[in-house]
Amino acid sequence: MEQAKNAFYAQSGGVTAVINASACGVIETARRHPDRIGHVYAGANGIIGALTEDLIDTSRESDAAIAALRHTPSGAFGSCRYKLRSVDENRAEYERLIDVFRAHDIAYFFYNGGGDSADTCHKISQISQSMGYPVQAIHIPKTVDNDLPITDNCPGFGSVAKYIAVSTREASFDVRSMARTSTKVFVIEVMGRHAGWIAAAGGLAADENNDIPVVILFPEIDFDRPRFLARVKENVESHGYCSVVVSEGAHWPDGKFLAEQDTRDAFGHAQLGGAAPVVANMVKEAFGYKFHWAVADYLQRAARHVASKTDVEQAYAVGKAAVEFALAGANAVMPTIVRTSQEPYAWEIGKAALAEVANVEKFMPAEYISEDGFGITEACRQYLLPLIEGEDYPPYHNGMPQYVELKNILVEKKLKDSFEL
Amino acid sequence: MEQAKNAFYAQSGGVTAVINASACGVIETARRHPDRIGHVYAGANGIIGALTEDLIDTSRESDAAIAALRHTPSGAFGSCRYKLRSVDENRAEYERLIDVFRAHDIAYFFYNGGGDSADTCHKISQISQSMGYPVQAIHIPKTVDNDLPITDNCPGFGSVAKYIAVSTREASFDVRSMARTSTKVFVIEVMGRHAGWIAAAGGLAADENNDIPVVILFPEIDFDRPRFLARVKENVESHGYCSVVVSEGAHWPDGKFLAEQDTRDAFGHAQLGGAAPVVANMVKEAFGYKFHWAVADYLQRAARHVASKTDVEQAYAVGKAAVEFALAGANAVMPTIVRTSQEPYAWEIGKAALAEVANVEKFMPAEYISEDGFGITEACRQYLLPLIEGEDYPPYHNGMPQYVELKNILVEKKLKDSFEL
Repeated sequence: MEQAKNAFYAQSGGVTAVINASACGVIETARRHPDRIGHVYAGANGIIGALTEDLIDTSRESDAAIAALRHTPSGAFGSCRYKLRSVDENRAEYERLIDVFRAHDIAYFFYNGGGDSADTCHKISQISQSMGYPVQAIHIPKTVDNDLPITDNCPGFGSVAKYIAVSTREASFDVRSMARTSTKVFVIEVMGRHAGWIAAAGGLAADENNDIPVVILFPEIDFDRPRFLARVKENVESHGYCSVVVSEGAHWPDGKFLAEQDTRDAFGHAQLGGAAPVVANMVKEAFGYKFHWAVADYLQRAARHVASKTDVEQAYAVGKAAVEFALAGANAVMPTIVRTSQEPYAWEIGKAALAEVANVEKFMPAEYISEDGFGITEACRQYLLPLIEGEDYPPYHNGMPQYVELKNILVEKKLKDSFEL
Repeated sequence: MEQAKNAFYAQSGGVTAVINASACGVIETARRHPDRIGHVYAGANGIIGALTEDLIDTSRESDAAIAALRHTPSGAFGSCRYKLRSVDENRAEYERLIDVFRAHDIAYFFYNGGGDSADTCHKISQISQSMGYPVQAIHIPKTVDNDLPITDNCPGFGSVAKYIAVSTREASFDVRSMARTSTKVFVIEVMGRHAGWIAAAGGLAADENNDIPVVILFPEIDFDRPRFLARVKENVESHGYCSVVVSEGAHWPDGKFLAEQDTRDAFGHAQLGGAAPVVANMVKEAFGYKFHWAVADYLQRAARHVASKTDVEQAYAVGKAAVEFALAGANAVMPTIVRTSQEPYAWEIGKAALAEVANVEKFMPAEYISEDGFGITEACRQYLLPLIEGEDYPPYHNGMPQYVELKNILVEKKLKDSFEL
């Protein structure tokens, strides 16, 4: 009989409303296989925790606490923005990781992140082999940007999309009420520096029962000021108001972001603004329309209170599948989401080789953006709608959502050397 | 037997997540008294609709549509920012209102708004009497700012408070996850130009189970840059991160808003920013901490998807009570919310004379702000918590909340003259 080995799990990059649901899937599934998996250790603050040997022993958490991860946003063990360099540049980092894995009898490496972490995961699989301590490395997809290839969509995206769609609809109702004498243009700025998936979700505010004029500024389309202003004016004249969804990545033809204004305060310091106030002021200057603007920032990706049920289920499922893949002997793979049917929507878990995932970014297909460049097509709507389907509310107490804070107890260190990042 | 008379209902000022619940309370209650109340006419875009004789016949809406107002944010009939001048300044406006009321057999005037509309409501009660066409004028409280006197709280506030408390908690979980290598300070800007009630709700993000360092910048407290920066640094050093809730009304000792930076863009145009980026940049300049900021703007007051159940119930109740007061012969009054018990929370409807409501603003009591000026006290927490208690989710279809859009059919005009605003 095989000896149980330990597993390592780490969260990478920007966190989401459902990345902890993936952690929940990993840990709950591992707990069902005590003969194969001993402890699941989580990296404190992501991969950094592996380098510094700060390993959180998830065995110390109750079943109830682990179950609560499913409805808790953010990264319960901490995440980090830390990209391992190439092996040639910094072999020491990889050797350190393997030393830590070896010291703690870790045979399974689960890395929960986006494109960069898929690449890291792939490298660790290869290097651990060449270093004589082979580790099964499985990547678990996570990104609000929805930009991983092969998988139909990325866990984390559906919930942001739902938040932006709902918020845009709600704010549009608001501005419509006020437009007769007050605000006529409302601008909301959303995430997505390179890909317009999140901005596209703003287009869901309108549908056959909600005639809401929404203008979307995608990062895929060069900003054209006169055409944009004309479109806003058209909407104000036909509907009395206009909603604008601007991606943080919206940019001028020369590539400069709208948000990068050459503004200085009274002391001459450069001011960091957002794209939303820039766009709103532009409209005001052109037509004098009163405006309001919002920047959703972290609120959008942390909004577990309005998460998509589909997203939560898929986030859990990719975590669960990662463990099942590992137990079946897979290596250097990533569970994917495969859309098997559109009407009714159905999905299943697939498997992609990391060699095909790493360093490939998926952009919005051109056929998802309307011809005028300011909206989404029916094909895009059909793609997006299932991803925001269903509600999955967290439990509340005293009017507030009850998100779990884990104990995060560290495992005793076994290596003599500390490691400088 | 009395002849049935018509009623007029109008929404005034900034709309909220629950002002339509008050409309629902008015119309549903009126429909139960067809012997006394014929039609409820709603002002298209608020009081302006009365002046221009654009009256929406709510009788043309189905019971189901009216019931759906309870879960629909914004102002279903349109609202306006239009303050009637004093009688001396513009008697013609008041005469016009009475002409319209007389032409459409309107004997009940329900005005749903804040302090200004309470004043207008009071005047209409007085003037209609002196003009020989006495109208019963009842004011229905509504304001996210929670600044009306006598009533324990204002419908509209509880839902904004819940949104800000939930969002601040969620974003704090997010920044905590990232703080090791990335964002250490998160700033969220909230509404409330004169009173810090909404900002105070950010303090609910932390509780006995959630040790979240929140610094609140109230409009009631002059901004003190060195003390603020010291407090942020303290939190980053003790917790690794810090959340800041800044009121749009936060200001320097000379009264100038933090948001009013003397910034110019490349063309020399003054830039309108928000308080959040100003505060965030200030922290960055002092300590180099990476930051993120959000401006919730309309999202906060339109967020019916995370409304407070208490708030929805109270909004409905004041609408219902307004009609009941009218039927009982009351005039120049406003239904109030009376807190009859704190533990467990209980409330009932009271009645205030408009003479005592008009032109009185209620500010945060000093004992609700912590001694250092950056947080809320236990007394404030006890005041706020019941107001965000309970969830009251709208129905969803295809992943989106189903908010009603009324037909808003106008009544045929009876007056020959049009009226220039």
